[in-house]
Amino acid sequence: MDSKTGRVTIPTDIDVIQDTLELSKRWGADAVRDCDGTDFPVELKDVGLKVYSTYYTTRKDNEWAKANPDEIQQLYVMTPFYTASEETLRIRLMKGLYPDMLTPNTRDDIRRWWEVMDRTEGEAVSPDEWHYEEEAGEVVINSVPFHDYTVSFLAYIMWDPVHMYNAVVNDWKDVEHQITFDVRQPKTHEYTMKRLRRFIEEHPYVNVLRFTTFFHQFTLLFDELAREKYVDWYGYSASVSPYILEQFEKEAGYAFRPEFIIDQGYYNNQYRIPSKEYRDFQAFQRREVTKIAKEMVDICHECGKEAMMFLGDHWIGTEPFMEEFKEIGLDAVVGSVGNGSTLRLISDIEGVKYTEGRLLPYFFPDTFHEGGDPVKEAKVNWVTARRAILRKPIDRIGYGGYLKLALDFPEFVEYVESVCAEFRELYENIKGTTPYCVKKVAVLNCWGKMRAWGNHMVHHAIYFKENYSYAGITEALSGAPFDVRFISFEDILADRDLLKDIDVIINVGDADTAHTGGAYWSNPVIASAVKEFVYNGGGIIGVGEPSGHQANGRFLQLANVFGVEEETGFTLGYDKYNWETHPHFITEDAKGKIDFGESNQYIYALENTEVLAAEDRKVHLAVNGFGKGRSVYISGLPYSFENSRLLYRAILWCTGDEESIHKWFSSNYNVEVHAYVENGKYCVVNNTYEPQSTTVYKGDGTSFDLDMEANQIIWYEI
Amino acid sequence: MDSKTGRVTIPTDIDVIQDTLELSKRWGADAVRDCDGTDFPVELKDVGLKVYSTYYTTRKDNEWAKANPDEIQQLYVMTPFYTASEETLRIRLMKGLYPDMLTPNTRDDIRRWWEVMDRTEGEAVSPDEWHYEEEAGEVVINSVPFHDYTVSFLAYIMWDPVHMYNAVVNDWKDVEHQITFDVRQPKTHEYTMKRLRRFIEEHPYVNVLRFTTFFHQFTLLFDELAREKYVDWYGYSASVSPYILEQFEKEAGYAFRPEFIIDQGYYNNQYRIPSKEYRDFQAFQRREVTKIAKEMVDICHECGKEAMMFLGDHWIGTEPFMEEFKEIGLDAVVGSVGNGSTLRLISDIEGVKYTEGRLLPYFFPDTFHEGGDPVKEAKVNWVTARRAILRKPIDRIGYGGYLKLALDFPEFVEYVESVCAEFRELYENIKGTTPYCVKKVAVLNCWGKMRAWGNHMVHHAIYFKENYSYAGITEALSGAPFDVRFISFEDILADRDLLKDIDVIINVGDADTAHTGGAYWSNPVIASAVKEFVYNGGGIIGVGEPSGHQANGRFLQLANVFGVEEETGFTLGYDKYNWETHPHFITEDAKGKIDFGESNQYIYALENTEVLAAEDRKVHLAVNGFGKGRSVYISGLPYSFENSRLLYRAILWCTGDEESIHKWFSSNYNVEVHAYVENGKYCVVNNTYEPQSTTVYKGDGTSFDLDMEANQIIWYEI
Repeated sequence: MDSKTGRVTIPTDIDVIQDTLELSKRWGADAVRDCDGTDFPVELKDVGLKVYSTYYTTRKDNEWAKANPDEIQQLYVMTPFYTASEETLRIRLMKGLYPDMLTPNTRDDIRRWWEVMDRTEGEAVSPDEWHYEEEAGEVVINSVPFHDYTVSFLAYIMWDPVHMYNAVVNDWKDVEHQITFDVRQPKTHEYTMKRLRRFIEEHPYVNVLRFTTFFHQFTLLFDELAREKYVDWYGYSASVSPYILEQFEKEAGYAFRPEFIIDQGYYNNQYRIPSKEYRDFQAFQRREVTKIAKEMVDICHECGKEAMMFLGDHWIGTEPFMEEFKEIGLDAVVGSVGNGSTLRLISDIEGVKYTEGRLLPYFFPDTFHEGGDPVKEAKVNWVTARRAILRKPIDRIGYGGYLKLALDFPEFVEYVESVCAEFRELYENIKGTTPYCVKKVAVLNCWGKMRAWGNHMVHHAIYFKENYSYAGITEALSGAPFDVRFISFEDILADRDLLKDIDVIINVGDADTAHTGGAYWSNPVIASAVKEFVYNGGGIIGVGEPSGHQANGRFLQLANVFGVEEETGFTLGYDKYNWETHPHFITEDAKGKIDFGESNQYIYALENTEVLAAEDRKVHLAVNGFGKGRSVYISGLPYSFENSRLLYRAILWCTGDEESIHKWFSSNYNVEVHAYVENGKYCVVNNTYEPQSTTVYKGDGTSFDLDMEANQIIWYEI
Repeated sequence: MDSKTGRVTIPTDIDVIQDTLELSKRWGADAVRDCDGTDFPVELKDVGLKVYSTYYTTRKDNEWAKANPDEIQQLYVMTPFYTASEETLRIRLMKGLYPDMLTPNTRDDIRRWWEVMDRTEGEAVSPDEWHYEEEAGEVVINSVPFHDYTVSFLAYIMWDPVHMYNAVVNDWKDVEHQITFDVRQPKTHEYTMKRLRRFIEEHPYVNVLRFTTFFHQFTLLFDELAREKYVDWYGYSASVSPYILEQFEKEAGYAFRPEFIIDQGYYNNQYRIPSKEYRDFQAFQRREVTKIAKEMVDICHECGKEAMMFLGDHWIGTEPFMEEFKEIGLDAVVGSVGNGSTLRLISDIEGVKYTEGRLLPYFFPDTFHEGGDPVKEAKVNWVTARRAILRKPIDRIGYGGYLKLALDFPEFVEYVESVCAEFRELYENIKGTTPYCVKKVAVLNCWGKMRAWGNHMVHHAIYFKENYSYAGITEALSGAPFDVRFISFEDILADRDLLKDIDVIINVGDADTAHTGGAYWSNPVIASAVKEFVYNGGGIIGVGEPSGHQANGRFLQLANVFGVEEETGFTLGYDKYNWETHPHFITEDAKGKIDFGESNQYIYALENTEVLAAEDRKVHLAVNGFGKGRSVYISGLPYSFENSRLLYRAILWCTGDEESIHKWFSSNYNVEVHAYVENGKYCVVNNTYEPQSTTVYKGDGTSFDLDMEANQIIWYEI
């Protein structure tokens, strides 16, 4: 593979055969793929390109699904809350749900698998006190007047949510709804293995089976108007069936309850502090999914094919950062790259031969239309992803969609050509090395490594006003020169010595969420382990409401470590005099007003704390000493180059290592320096779309001035 | 008493005898008073003015205090939090406290009356595990490393906090610190009654003893720099002593713990949901304070004097809105009027012959200096108070401070003359009647009538950025044509039928505070009683985070009543489509952008809710139907004439009585109409300092146009 070819996958279709060949040369592509909605032209099977084929494990076979309705996939769903006004309450199950997508499962015993909850009491209603009227689609409850009720029920997934989404968004007409069948169940399990073998036999020219994906779709529901109703890219609600749950009961040794999955209607989303039952369930699913996925991968290998997993759609239960994942034996993982965080969701995966990132934009009409600016989208995507690639590279890049659409945008084609070349160059320069890391940083929350790089992520890389001020931390870290770990409170409970191998703990988010930890901070083991860590010289950075949980006279449980506390009304009687702000190492590069994002909470500083930024009786940035250690409080930190620099400085400061600032450093924060000491290389990279001037500091502190073009990356020998 | 004289009290001093006489004629004053720091000139004892004398029940007798150190008053105070880094932790008690004010009480058994708390475990440390080193002033604890500790201890009040405040603020030099002695204890009790009789004997010309006040100062602490450190106008921390607490133990039937008063360092402030123990303690104090105060009042009466209580300083335990208060037998209550709410703190008191409001500004140098504008302050104070006086009048007004200072401001003297005349006129017009009330409104919180008109009040009428958006509701109500009650959750638990006599419930404040109720909303009796109330046609208005308490799938426990919910992260996965705003009856008079104050919380609307105002994915105002009833959600409502109108409309709308809008109504919200149907009068009042034009609607809906001068009040016969 010369430096002009390789590490790039392009999409194709039957109407762009010649163009595919030409573009693959121009971009140096060495692999070609089909997509949902395109077909692979057999003419391309022997042109020297590796051939990927999407493979849908759980759909695109309605004949089977219809013949085996008992093995159609199911999900748990909860109705809205209804207040009883009398002694009878009727709840129509499908209110608010897209009718063609779901069918309540009355095949299995609803008294066992459904649950009517009195949400005013917080108790389940005995099945003797309710029944289901199938014709009306209503559950009828003997209710206590003015109590609230919900019904949790199992429903068959009669239209695969991703297929439905693609059909709705692309306005596909007269498309047959693809039903989702459950590979975990015995008949379908057996059939699936045969189906896979048949597919491989019928597609001998395919080199790589790109599983889209394995067995369980992340939670995705639509309302009556076919609008998205609920989404959780990490959700397990659609990974259930009585068959599976009975297995779970046996393994767990206790009775299953729908509430384990329903979780008051919060469906155990990433903000919820996970219950023991949910953690047990996830672990069970990981083991079971691994078993059957491994069977499929083994078949691929037996047939001489590679197996690649798409990190999305039906990826639930695979959990690439958990131990079980390696056992699947996959050759590769591919995923969509929305930003630096999602890049590392892919590139940090271990136990596969290679990872691949699907860059944006998709070649879809929403971008590739008259007046559209795909070059701009591509630039933003590439520059954002590149920061993270330079820390931990994916092994390949690729694109998806309708190639034909891209052909009408010659500037785009040219830009992608430069991206492909640049990617190959940087990959060559950094491969196999661990880049220079200034510090070991651990993000502490309730999920730990299972949600590495995905903190505050609801629907992949989608923006939320409510959390961008926190997600910015993860994004900044994704491209920063730190060894980043994600640890959980349970990890500390299992072994508090793990903190000895860490320089800085980071705790980010709103109080009483899984991101900050809630009641875990009332556990003396946790609280004292973290205090001991800082006291003995560790650094800690808290963002938002770190350690926030009202108990024992504190809202922020680490108030005396951070030197700040939150005003919830309980301390209004205490006079607060510490508002004056001070210049500091951490804010040395900040120009003008720092963007702290939303910062809704009233944070005030305790005595002796040094306030660095405050306004309107809200502290935004403060530092404190605690024993030999140091803490930094930040009210919120949306991602920007300037804020990324602020976080960098905060990490150095709180480890007492300010003097390392001029190692592999750019005076201009729009430019970053990454060093690969083992390979004897370093690069300077302009993250902006304008020219930049900077002074570059090398590892020995020597420096030189540099003018850079927009987006430029320059490589040097050490 | 002709209309040109009476109902006014003026301050005097020995250097303004002639001026006092002249001003008392001009202002129509019929009473004269001394103040802390002034002396009554005996020359004025027979000039036809009623003479008030301040009487300090618990101070101004250091000889007694020093002779009886065991009966000096005490308070409970908690040290800051300290983290142990080793197995011994030393805590210096007086760190952060003004040294001359407090002396730790080691006279009584510290093992019983002090408490060392392990705040990491939330448990008391056994007295065997700590001791006090008196010389160092330090408690030495056998500590668990990296646990947090506090010490709760009793201290003698060696300098009365109000005396200290006056001395510091007025820069009094070489003043002997007045020690506070405890009238509740046996020797001082007996002595006090004799001292009172002696005072009366020695001051035969005094007509009214103005008690300043009875026995216990509200909580007020100062730091090492003599700055205010902690203040709670409602705080009971300084009403304790082993003598009192042993009595309490006997009455309550369970052992006392310092933590009952310390409350994790929150000292049971108004934002804390009161514990049973604290409620028991308050009730005990009310009964005991009543008993001894009654003794003093009886002595006054026996000697032919009136007894007046100052509502401030040592007022703790009197609780004028509680049943016991009437039994004291006071003739009058006087208090400072900072705004409409504090006016009604006084005027709503029952069981006294008359109430008196001390208007602002005080005649003190902070206002009465060259370049000062006392007229402006007086206007703001009068116009603010007048709204509330028109709903429920005080019987008298008065001023305080150094009369001499006022004399240098002839415009001020003239303005006060007009205020006195206006007050007498309005009092004459409305006395003895209940003004026209449109609706019965109940503010629901954990304190009920005990904190009537004082909700969100920390230090009397002092502004706090953190709560002005909530206090605005109370202020608006203080001058609005409603029958306003204050009810508690315990009231509903005792008798849910009390809701039958109410038109609208209002719940205002942050989640998990006493103002909104916290876990009370998880009590099915409370939740269902309120839902039933609304369902059957009641109105409900929620402001901020009403019914906010995370439980059973809701953050706002009345989410389906209000039709809104708060985003805490747990429902980020749910798509939210209801953001469009609609014109509405409630916002008809709103001009431009409504001021919702701080409004930090992310509120979103449920389906079918009608959003009236929203921005940045935060709903500020929304209405909903629930059964036959209606709800209004408001994110915050600082007091303004415009917002007061919005609240007025919200109350009418949520009772389904929009058609009553044109009864006793002004089209211009800067002008208000108050009707006194029994007396056959109504008035139109311009609340602003500019002329206003409006259309006035009478009770029958007929109307007329009116142009008004600044501040003008016009009286009409019905």
